[in-house]
Amino acid sequence: MPLPHIARQAPTVESIINAHAALRAQGPLVQCLTNVVSANFMANVLLAAGASPAMVDNPEEAAGFASIAGAVLVNLGTPTQAQVQSMRLAVQAADDIGKPWVLDPIGAGALPWRGAVAVELLAYRPAVIRGNASEIIGLAGLGTSNAKGFDSSNDPADAVDAALSLLAHAACVSASGPIDHVVGKVQNDQGEVSHYLLRIAGGSALLPRVTASGCSLGALVAAYAAVTQDGFCATAAAHVHFALAAEYAELHARGPGSFMAAFLDGLDLVDARLIRAKAQVEGVKL
Amino acid sequence: MPLPHIARQAPTVESIINAHAALRAQGPLVQCLTNVVSANFMANVLLAAGASPAMVDNPEEAAGFASIAGAVLVNLGTPTQAQVQSMRLAVQAADDIGKPWVLDPIGAGALPWRGAVAVELLAYRPAVIRGNASEIIGLAGLGTSNAKGFDSSNDPADAVDAALSLLAHAACVSASGPIDHVVGKVQNDQGEVSHYLLRIAGGSALLPRVTASGCSLGALVAAYAAVTQDGFCATAAAHVHFALAAEYAELHARGPGSFMAAFLDGLDLVDARLIRAKAQVEGVKL
Amino acid sequence: MPLPHIARQAPTVESIINAHAALRAQGPLVQCLTNVVSANFMANVLLAAGASPAMVDNPEEAAGFASIAGAVLVNLGTPTQAQVQSMRLAVQAADDIGKPWVLDPIGAGALPWRGAVAVELLAYRPAVIRGNASEIIGLAGLGTSNAKGFDSSNDPADAVDAALSLLAHAACVSASGPIDHVVGKVQNDQGEVSHYLLRIAGGSALLPRVTASGCSLGALVAAYAAVTQDGFCATAAAHVHFALAAEYAELHARGPGSFMAAFLDGLDLVDARLIRAKAQVEGVKL
Repeated sequence: MPLPHIARQAPTVESIINAHAALRAQGPLVQCLTNVVSANFMANVLLAAGASPAMVDNPEEAAGFASIAGAVLVNLGTPTQAQVQSMRLAVQAADDIGKPWVLDPIGAGALPWRGAVAVELLAYRPAVIRGNASEIIGLAGLGTSNAKGFDSSNDPADAVDAALSLLAHAACVSASGPIDHVVGKVQNDQGEVSHYLLRIAGGSALLPRVTASGCSLGALVAAYAAVTQDGFCATAAAHVHFALAAEYAELHARGPGSFMAAFLDGLDLVDARLIRAKAQVEGVKL
Repeated sequence: MPLPHIARQAPTVESIINAHAALRAQGPLVQCLTNVVSANFMANVLLAAGASPAMVDNPEEAAGFASIAGAVLVNLGTPTQAQVQSMRLAVQAADDIGKPWVLDPIGAGALPWRGAVAVELLAYRPAVIRGNASEIIGLAGLGTSNAKGFDSSNDPADAVDAALSLLAHAACVSASGPIDHVVGKVQNDQGEVSHYLLRIAGGSALLPRVTASGCSLGALVAAYAAVTQDGFCATAAAHVHFALAAEYAELHARGPGSFMAAFLDGLDLVDARLIRAKAQVEGVKL
Repeated sequence: MPLPHIARQAPTVESIINAHAALRAQGPLVQCLTNVVSANFMANVLLAAGASPAMVDNPEEAAGFASIAGAVLVNLGTPTQAQVQSMRLAVQAADDIGKPWVLDPIGAGALPWRGAVAVELLAYRPAVIRGNASEIIGLAGLGTSNAKGFDSSNDPADAVDAALSLLAHAACVSASGPIDHVVGKVQNDQGEVSHYLLRIAGGSALLPRVTASGCSLGALVAAYAAVTQDGFCATAAAHVHFALAAEYAELHARGPGSFMAAFLDGLDLVDARLIRAKAQVEGVKL
C-alpha cells in the first residue's frame, strides 16, 4: 500500500506561500500527544502561527478526537504507558481515515523502551517524521545513536542517509538543525516516485536555547499537513515559517528569554511578502 | 438544599474593588486540578494577580489539600483517570466543608467521556462554572455543541440561555469572549432568588491567542471566591481584572508572545484606581 | 558509610567562578523528575544557564537514564504513584553509581503522603536538599510545618537548625529566601568533618513571583553538581548564578511577566566578571 500524503511535485517558495495562506484561512485543529515540557509552548506556537491546539492524549478520547482534528502530532518526549496507549489509538484512527500525522521520535535512539514504541508506531504510516539530526539517525539505526540527552549533537547533513532510509515509512523526513535537511517523496502521474532533498537555511542560534522549539516545529508541520494533505510541502512550510520567525526574534532579543517571546510574535507576523523575500530553500533531486 | 456562595446583591464596581483589596491582602491559596498545557501559566497568573497556586491533583492528597486551600479549581482540559478521581475527591471535600470551587468544563460538550465527568461533578455544587461560549452551550446541552477544538466558535451572547440553565447547579455561570456574559443568582433577606446578567467589556483580541488564558481566568475566579465567598462577585472581579490587564498588555505588545509577558505584568499592576476608571460592567436584572 | 559529594573546602567566590566555567564548558545533562508546573520553565532555566535538560520520569526509563545523565533532580511538587516509582528507581541508580542527585521536598512537611516519600528517598543519599525555609523546616520535622501552600512563609534564618539536622542525609542543605541560607559539610584530609553556613544575598523580590523559580534553582544545583561533584559548591554556585540573573532581570522588568523573560536572559549572560564583581556570599564556620 503506497504511503499517503505524497504530492505530485516538490515544494517551492510559491507552494509554501500557498500553504501559509491556507493555514491562516483555515486555522486547522491539531491534536497533540506530546511531552509535558512542551505542551504550553507548543500550544502557543500553534496559536501564534494561526492554528488551533488540542492536547487530547488520554486513551478514552484519543482515537475519537483524531477524527475531529485536522492532523495529529505524536511526540515521544515524556511517554507514559497510558499516553503510549493513546498514541497507538490516535495514529491508528488517523491512518484509518487518512488524516495526516507527524512522528517526533525524541530519544528513540537512546532509550530502548520508547525506541520500540517508535518502531511500532511507524506501522501506522506517519505523513512526516521530524527530529533533530541525532534523533533521525537514532531512529533509523536504533541503538547506535549518541545519547547526549535530547539535544542534537549531530550535524543534519550527516543525517540525510538515515532520513532517506526512513522514507520507507513516511512521505517526508526532516532533520532540523542550523541548516534543516528535509527529504521527501514525489510521485508523478505515472506513479513513479522520486526523492528530493531540501536544505532550509536561516533561523537563529537562539532557537535551540528555547526548550521545546523542536517539538513545536513538529506540531506546526502537523498544522500545515492538515491544510495541504502534502507531507513534504507541509514540512518545508513549517521549517521556513520557523526560520523567519526566529530571524525576526533575534533582532528583538537580548537572550533566550526575550527571544522566546519575540519568536511567538514573529510566528504571528510572518506573511507571504516575508516568505517570498527571505525564505532560503535549496532543492536537489536525488 | 440551596446552592452555597450566593450573595445578597449583584456585583458592582465598588464590590469588585473590595474583592480586589481582599485578594491582595489575603493572597489566597488556590488548589488547581488542571490540564498540563495550563499549569505553568495558570500558576503565574495567580502569582501575578496576588494569589498563591498549588497544583495538588493526585488521589492521595487532593481531598486533604482542599481543606487547606481557600478554593479549588477543576479544569477538564487533559483529564486522566487518576486526575478525574482526584477531582471527585477534591470537590466532594470542598462541598462538604463549604469551600468554593470552580468548574471549567473544557471540551465537555464535544467529548463524551469528559462530558459524563462534568455532569457527575455538577452534583458537588460548584460555586461557579466558567467556560467560553461553546463550552457553556456544550455543557448545558451535552452532545449538541460545535466541536472545533477548545477554542470558542460561539458568541457569548448566544450562550446566555445555556448559562441560565446551568444556574441550577452553581451560583454563577460565565461565558467569556469578546464581551464576557456572566449570569448569577442573588438572594434577598426573604430568601427570594433573582437572576442577573453582567456584560463585561474590554480586554484584548490578543488574549485568546495565548493558550490557557481562559483556563487561568477560571483559576482567578477561584482565588476571588476564596476571599469573597460570593461566586457572582468573584467571577465579575476576575473578569474585570483580566480585561484591564489585557488592555495594559496590548499597549506593550508586538504580538502574542510579548503580550503574554505584559499581561502578567498587567495583572500585577491592576489596582483600585484602574478598576474604578476603566472597568466596563453593565448589569441587567433578568 | 560517609555521604558522597563532600569537598575538602567550603565554597568561595573563586570556586564558584570555576564551577561556572565548568558548567559552560561541559553543558551537563540533567535528568529532571519534576512537577508539571515547573517542567517547561526548568528546562529553559537549564538551557539559559548552559546545561541540557531531559525530563525522563517514567518507570521504564528513569533508572537507565540516570546512568546517562550527569546529575538527577527529584522534585516532589506534583507526584503521582508512577512518578514516585520512577524517583525511587532513578535515585537508587544514581546512588549506586555515584551520580549526584538533588532533592526538592516541596510540600513534604504539609502533606503526609509525599512526606513519607521524601523520608524514604533520603536513604538514597542526595548530594543536596534544596527548599524554601518552610520546606526545610517541614522536612526536618515532618508534620510540624506551617502549610500555606508551597510558598515560603518562614524566614530562611529560622531554618538553619532544621537544615543542619538534615546534613545527616546530604552534603549540603539550602533554605532559599530573601537571603539564602546554605549549610554544608567539609571534610579535611584527616577525615574530620566541619559544618559551614553561607549566607547568599542579592536577587530580586520579583523572583518568587515567578512560579517554579525555586524548583528551577534545584535543577541548576544539580547541573552544577554534575560538573563539580561537590554538593556544597554546586549549591553556592547555583544560588549566586540565580541571584545575579535576578538582579539583571529586575533592571529590565515592568512586572513578573517581563521579569521572567529577562531572568532567562540574565542566566545566559552571567559570567566570571559579573560573579566576581557582584556575588554576595558570606561564610561562617559553625
